[in-house]
Amino acid sequence: MVNLSGYRGDSLKLLGEYRVSIGDPIIIETDKAIYEGILMPRYEFADDQHIVIKLKNGYNIGINIKRIKNIIKKSEKEELIPIIQLPPISLDKNLPKVSIISTGGTIASRIDYRTGGVHPALSASDLYTAIPEISKYAQIDTEILFNLYSENIEVSHWKAMAIKIAEKIKEGFQGVIITHGTDTMGYTSAALSFALINLPIPVAIVGSQRSSDRPSSDAALNLIGGVIVAAKAPFSGVYVVMHSSMNDDILAVHLGTRVRKNHTSRRDAFESIDISPAAYIKNGNIEKVLDNLPIRREDYNYQPRANFDNRVALLKFYPNFDPSIIEYLIDRGYKGIVLEGTGLGHVSNACYPALRKAIDKGLLVMMTSQCIWGRVRMTVYETGRDLLKIGVIPLEGMLPETALVKAMWVLANTNNQEDAKRLMLMNLVGEYVSRSPLERRPKDGVF
Amino acid sequence: MVNLSGYRGDSLKLLGEYRVSIGDPIIIETDKAIYEGILMPRYEFADDQHIVIKLKNGYNIGINIKRIKNIIKKSEKEELIPIIQLPPISLDKNLPKVSIISTGGTIASRIDYRTGGVHPALSASDLYTAIPEISKYAQIDTEILFNLYSENIEVSHWKAMAIKIAEKIKEGFQGVIITHGTDTMGYTSAALSFALINLPIPVAIVGSQRSSDRPSSDAALNLIGGVIVAAKAPFSGVYVVMHSSMNDDILAVHLGTRVRKNHTSRRDAFESIDISPAAYIKNGNIEKVLDNLPIRREDYNYQPRANFDNRVALLKFYPNFDPSIIEYLIDRGYKGIVLEGTGLGHVSNACYPALRKAIDKGLLVMMTSQCIWGRVRMTVYETGRDLLKIGVIPLEGMLPETALVKAMWVLANTNNQEDAKRLMLMNLVGEYVSRSPLERRPKDGVF
Repeated sequence: MVNLSGYRGDSLKLLGEYRVSIGDPIIIETDKAIYEGILMPRYEFADDQHIVIKLKNGYNIGINIKRIKNIIKKSEKEELIPIIQLPPISLDKNLPKVSIISTGGTIASRIDYRTGGVHPALSASDLYTAIPEISKYAQIDTEILFNLYSENIEVSHWKAMAIKIAEKIKEGFQGVIITHGTDTMGYTSAALSFALINLPIPVAIVGSQRSSDRPSSDAALNLIGGVIVAAKAPFSGVYVVMHSSMNDDILAVHLGTRVRKNHTSRRDAFESIDISPAAYIKNGNIEKVLDNLPIRREDYNYQPRANFDNRVALLKFYPNFDPSIIEYLIDRGYKGIVLEGTGLGHVSNACYPALRKAIDKGLLVMMTSQCIWGRVRMTVYETGRDLLKIGVIPLEGMLPETALVKAMWVLANTNNQEDAKRLMLMNLVGEYVSRSPLERRPKDGVF
Repeated sequence: MVNLSGYRGDSLKLLGEYRVSIGDPIIIETDKAIYEGILMPRYEFADDQHIVIKLKNGYNIGINIKRIKNIIKKSEKEELIPIIQLPPISLDKNLPKVSIISTGGTIASRIDYRTGGVHPALSASDLYTAIPEISKYAQIDTEILFNLYSENIEVSHWKAMAIKIAEKIKEGFQGVIITHGTDTMGYTSAALSFALINLPIPVAIVGSQRSSDRPSSDAALNLIGGVIVAAKAPFSGVYVVMHSSMNDDILAVHLGTRVRKNHTSRRDAFESIDISPAAYIKNGNIEKVLDNLPIRREDYNYQPRANFDNRVALLKFYPNFDPSIIEYLIDRGYKGIVLEGTGLGHVSNACYPALRKAIDKGLLVMMTSQCIWGRVRMTVYETGRDLLKIGVIPLEGMLPETALVKAMWVLANTNNQEDAKRLMLMNLVGEYVSRSPLERRPKDGVF
């Protein structure tokens, strides 16, 4: 049975003529080179001008059908020999200049065929070659900044990314894409939101929940979405661009300070919390949803504020939580503690003495909620009022993860506790949501 | 304008005859007593045989209209003087016997009129008087076990609850209700699920997100739902019974090990994660959803396993997480650590030495995901495989909160590390979900 899933128009016609099917080992002859690989499926709204094959080294490449002279289906027994000669990309000089900065993660990964595991390996320029549609939207420049699993990304990397982005602005790029592992993408998007406060251009952070070797991969579409935002968005700021549903039809553009990875594996794992996404991308077009987004502007001398202080801890409270952990952090020289309390912002009264001591010693102690949705309101119950009296700072609806990152940033920018408190309570880059959208939130679709 | 929201049938007719409206100060004369208070609204599917007023002391009571001789509307200027004489409840001796055990929380609270804050104060028997519909479903016995904000509930309280429930079984009760603060309700429901493994009857944990003094309170309906489950459910085990939507029309009966408070204030904050609720309650009837629930049975000699070891920590990982916190817990004599890692179950490689040390010293180190939905899969990426090699135990889709509580229970029941590991990996009371329902999860309803 012939399967040509995702192909349509001219490319579907061509493949039909050569009687090949997805999964077939094939040889493609073009005017300039010969390619050998497995015919791969295309995602839903791919163009009809390219055929994608997986080379033996695990990379996918897209080949323009105008250049194809012949397609040969190989016998399955025959071993595939890679014969690659990547053609130069021809670029439209009138398109916006977009920089793709690679930091690692699944979006830049390939399968290790020995173990079946996934390794970060694909370079940014390889990604570019694999997804030819990108050249419709932008002139791309690619750079590998790191090659890290995102669980290993730390404050020093946030700083390096912010500085690199400012460099790209100076060089005249109209938008920047950060490819990033999805694990800590929400933390990095918050970090860059603060480090790049008052940013003149859009920065799109993109990743992939399924490696680009799998037909179900979201890598290509997310990267295209990132390019569209970087090249075309009328707004500036830091956004996460990822699948909005299980289908390859809509991408969501999430505000960097309000986004969370809410599923370990689904392609639509990323969600805006207590607010709608800033925009959606449908059929290559940006549909803005949020008003009051900062407007894109020209400012080649933009200066980031890229320092973070890592002496801040995020502590999730639970029954029998051991207050001596708080005392340990005080002794260790911590400058801030973000509590992830229960409900409207509570911890047990057994924690009061340690919290009092922390605040006496000059630590910033802040409250968020482990409920994720909704806001802390510490005036309703006795416990909340007690904690306010002790000096715990209520962070309303700020996400715990964003609160941690913001505190790291604030405490690197001021040594004055009152200034730090004032900054924590100010809405700088959308980290606080207004009351009304709060009542919206994902709902169980079971019945 | 007359507002008689929630009243219908006979009670609506009666109130209409006396031309009173919700919020009016009124005096009601019955055959046995005189009541003064404010006429309160009723929730959506309340019966039509009772009128509810708020007494001056802040309690609500329901009065059967058959006993009402007269209703007098007071001038608003006149001060209300409480004249209370609670009538004895007449019970149908053929109804199931249900025990309501009060532990505190908003469901058993009232407003402090000086400060506007909420205090736990209402006794279980007062709750019973305020919601006369309960007598349709069960003969109720009430007992105050504690009066605690749930953020102060600890392992010793879980033990006391489990032992008390076993006592009630011995005394012949067919179902038990625990009224509980919502903050740590998910932890307690998991704890009781393990402590009451192989339970013969249903235990319904109920709470309230809005205090019973507010017209929007969910207290009455959640309590009625708890009574229905305790009295009528064909299944046994520990469940959380709370609003399923923002309306007062459907309640969800959540499996005790798969439920989470996902909003700080909404009435439908509680959600089953990666599985549907065990059942719904609509119009007073239980509609079962999950198959394979344990069946209710008679066993008056049921013995709980009520011990928990509190030397277990839940550690949420984040960028720059300080591995010395793990070493601190080792030094402090901890027996287990549940990691709330990123994505499919990762932490930074900076944590490896401390984790190795913890496992060498005999601590049980386990992995869950901070994504909440989905499961950890530690064979996909290098980091996961490294952690498996070190000896970290992957807990699949178990909720971090449930994993913490289960580890506390397992480590109180065995001193053998291998036995503990085996027990952690066994599906004892539904804490592991099968693969297929995993793909369902709450979705953003924004577009």
